[in-house]
Amino acid sequence: VPRTVLVIGGGPAGSGAARGAKDADTAAAVTVLAPGGAAPDDPADERQRTARESLIASGVEFRGATQIAIDLDRRIVRADGAELRFDALVITDSNPDPATALPGSDLPGVLAEVPADSTGPEPPADGAGPRAVVVGATPRGLAAAVRLAAAGVDTTLVDPEPEPLADLVDPDVLAPVLEQLAAAGVRLRPATTVTGFLGTDGRLSAVSTSAGELPAELAVVATTPSGDPVDVPGIERGPTGRIAVDDRQRTSITGVYAAGPASEPVPGALRTASHEFAQGRAAGATAAGGDRRYHAAHVPWSASAGAAVLGGAGYGETAAAALGLRYVLGRAEGISRARYYPGVQKVLVKLLAEPGTLRLIGAQLRGAGEGVTERATFLAQAVRLGLTLHDLSTMENVYSPAIGALNEPIVVAATNGLADLAAAQQT
Amino acid sequence: VPRTVLVIGGGPAGSGAARGAKDADTAAAVTVLAPGGAAPDDPADERQRTARESLIASGVEFRGATQIAIDLDRRIVRADGAELRFDALVITDSNPDPATALPGSDLPGVLAEVPADSTGPEPPADGAGPRAVVVGATPRGLAAAVRLAAAGVDTTLVDPEPEPLADLVDPDVLAPVLEQLAAAGVRLRPATTVTGFLGTDGRLSAVSTSAGELPAELAVVATTPSGDPVDVPGIERGPTGRIAVDDRQRTSITGVYAAGPASEPVPGALRTASHEFAQGRAAGATAAGGDRRYHAAHVPWSASAGAAVLGGAGYGETAAAALGLRYVLGRAEGISRARYYPGVQKVLVKLLAEPGTLRLIGAQLRGAGEGVTERATFLAQAVRLGLTLHDLSTMENVYSPAIGALNEPIVVAATNGLADLAAAQQT
Repeated sequence: VPRTVLVIGGGPAGSGAARGAKDADTAAAVTVLAPGGAAPDDPADERQRTARESLIASGVEFRGATQIAIDLDRRIVRADGAELRFDALVITDSNPDPATALPGSDLPGVLAEVPADSTGPEPPADGAGPRAVVVGATPRGLAAAVRLAAAGVDTTLVDPEPEPLADLVDPDVLAPVLEQLAAAGVRLRPATTVTGFLGTDGRLSAVSTSAGELPAELAVVATTPSGDPVDVPGIERGPTGRIAVDDRQRTSITGVYAAGPASEPVPGALRTASHEFAQGRAAGATAAGGDRRYHAAHVPWSASAGAAVLGGAGYGETAAAALGLRYVLGRAEGISRARYYPGVQKVLVKLLAEPGTLRLIGAQLRGAGEGVTERATFLAQAVRLGLTLHDLSTMENVYSPAIGALNEPIVVAATNGLADLAAAQQT
Repeated sequence: VPRTVLVIGGGPAGSGAARGAKDADTAAAVTVLAPGGAAPDDPADERQRTARESLIASGVEFRGATQIAIDLDRRIVRADGAELRFDALVITDSNPDPATALPGSDLPGVLAEVPADSTGPEPPADGAGPRAVVVGATPRGLAAAVRLAAAGVDTTLVDPEPEPLADLVDPDVLAPVLEQLAAAGVRLRPATTVTGFLGTDGRLSAVSTSAGELPAELAVVATTPSGDPVDVPGIERGPTGRIAVDDRQRTSITGVYAAGPASEPVPGALRTASHEFAQGRAAGATAAGGDRRYHAAHVPWSASAGAAVLGGAGYGETAAAALGLRYVLGRAEGISRARYYPGVQKVLVKLLAEPGTLRLIGAQLRGAGEGVTERATFLAQAVRLGLTLHDLSTMENVYSPAIGALNEPIVVAATNGLADLAAAQQT
């Protein structure tokens, strides 16, 4: 008998859970409860839109729900008055819009993403140019800031961390992106926390931060959801208060799964939208009777930030250093095709391998579009399969510079890593 | 003591041999003997130009040589009067321009490639439009024909095979490319052999073929070299008369290696420029004291043909059928990013796996540029590593439709293959 799988939360983890459930059993009855129902939270969020269109085409039902209560004894969820029965429940978040957690977040002018056709906010009445504050130097935040600045908006990017994106991207990989941001006129305010939104005449007029008020007619909240799951009586929680899970996303209660912001994060593991989608997918697959594990290091991630595309898998140097992991580094800056060919783009590849075995434990990439996502997908598999720098350095090339690098940057990076190692062992 | 490695032939296999020798020992003294020396055979050949620039930067010497004789006892090669000593000799070809093998191939108007800045040949004096014949429906020939037709030249593409490129590309993968060719105004003449070139007033005026004369002011010879190696006394030869080699490209004579058109082809194995480069690389690496094997199935290939980019690794359906190999097929037509996002492109993926083990034995790809080469590189590794359809169907995704497909077409193809197999086993 096909199971009825109920998913709470419509973010990447919720979409992943629905996808995973349908992967495992196409006949499973899958319903996603999310504020806004089938509509993406914001029409400009292409990730959500794509995922939902694809899921609806697979037979997944989306229902709008803002008030959610779980009755484990009767195995039902009460959503805005309706009672929905489930065989398996996947909790990803009850509150996918982190903006709503801050005072004033319901003001017009506070959005989760820059509308795709935006030409910026209305300028203020005082004659100043239009101003925007982007909250969170996430990949999504960087992209939003670049887009706003390009539209002529005076843009400030606020981030709580002293080094933006340090968990995800190594400083040498990120540096040109930050230079591009500055060149585009975006002001970065690191180590600054947003505390609320202030209105004048019923519209946003300023963003309140730990470093004072920033006047703004538009605020884009690009932080990842903080995780405020619905109450589940008796469920085991982790050190940060989120729901404890195993690598199949099972919780302490049979038939209840958690993923994404609702679940306890693994220390040191990356958490991008790609990771949340993958984690949700494991939860949904297991919930529907399949068997899929989640390993953060096996998930490729990729993000566009202005003219650059960043990507990778597993550990970068910053993350490895934070965990005290030793590694062998292979690094190469190559090109995507012959250098005199139209459309040639620079590609930076960094490979981190375990000393001794030389098995890949992580990779970081920067390019301008061409093949970053595909290389990230491949390198995530290389981590998963335990490929070594030797394996990667002996990969064969496509001999067609018009459409591919004669020396694949991954191969060059692996070869450089081995050469550095040989030189170090000789001295 | 670093070895002196001499490479005969400046085609892809010769470039690969020089690359392989420098890979194995950066101190090796590597010289490539090729007609034209360091200059590519044709200024429009981007592959050769890129490879030679890169090799010269690594310290490889190129020497022009048209008359070559090998003295194995003294371990020297006589090239146009000079005597060059070698420790290891790699023979890839003595005659990299197949056009010179046909009568009249020295006529002005007979070229190996369309010049990059070409606006087509001069129109004839009789008032007709300019006409070109492209010899060989190879990837390079298809690209040349599309380029000429786009420049307004009346273009005929002549190929000896009844089905062009059938060894390399499956009919369903190639079909849209042939449709594009026809739509661009290129006339395809399959099952037709070129026998020579005819001149009027010292310039090309027609191409002589098995199906009669074709008037033309330009002929582009895009066939792969036929293999006419220099004479090596006492060397063992294979069934087709070319030099017999093992998988490290060693011949029956110690210190002498062969690759590319000079070496005996493995029945059923692909032979693109990518394969010749890889084969040369194994020969050069072994010649310089390293150890690199050549496996045709582990080499990715990719070729642009008009608006399409084709690629793959290992066996396609036609090649597998010709060898009597059984296979499980997984096929998917996906998109390179979210369908409403600018720049979205269709991607076709076909995966062939061994029945039972479901290990990948080959892949075919068609796209419009984005990520075909990178996917081919990855799938060649998947063949090399023996990845199964299960491995490929459980790969994680990048969740960022603006820069990558939410459902990676390789994953969808593998999943489709498994679903078809499950359905077939139930009936």
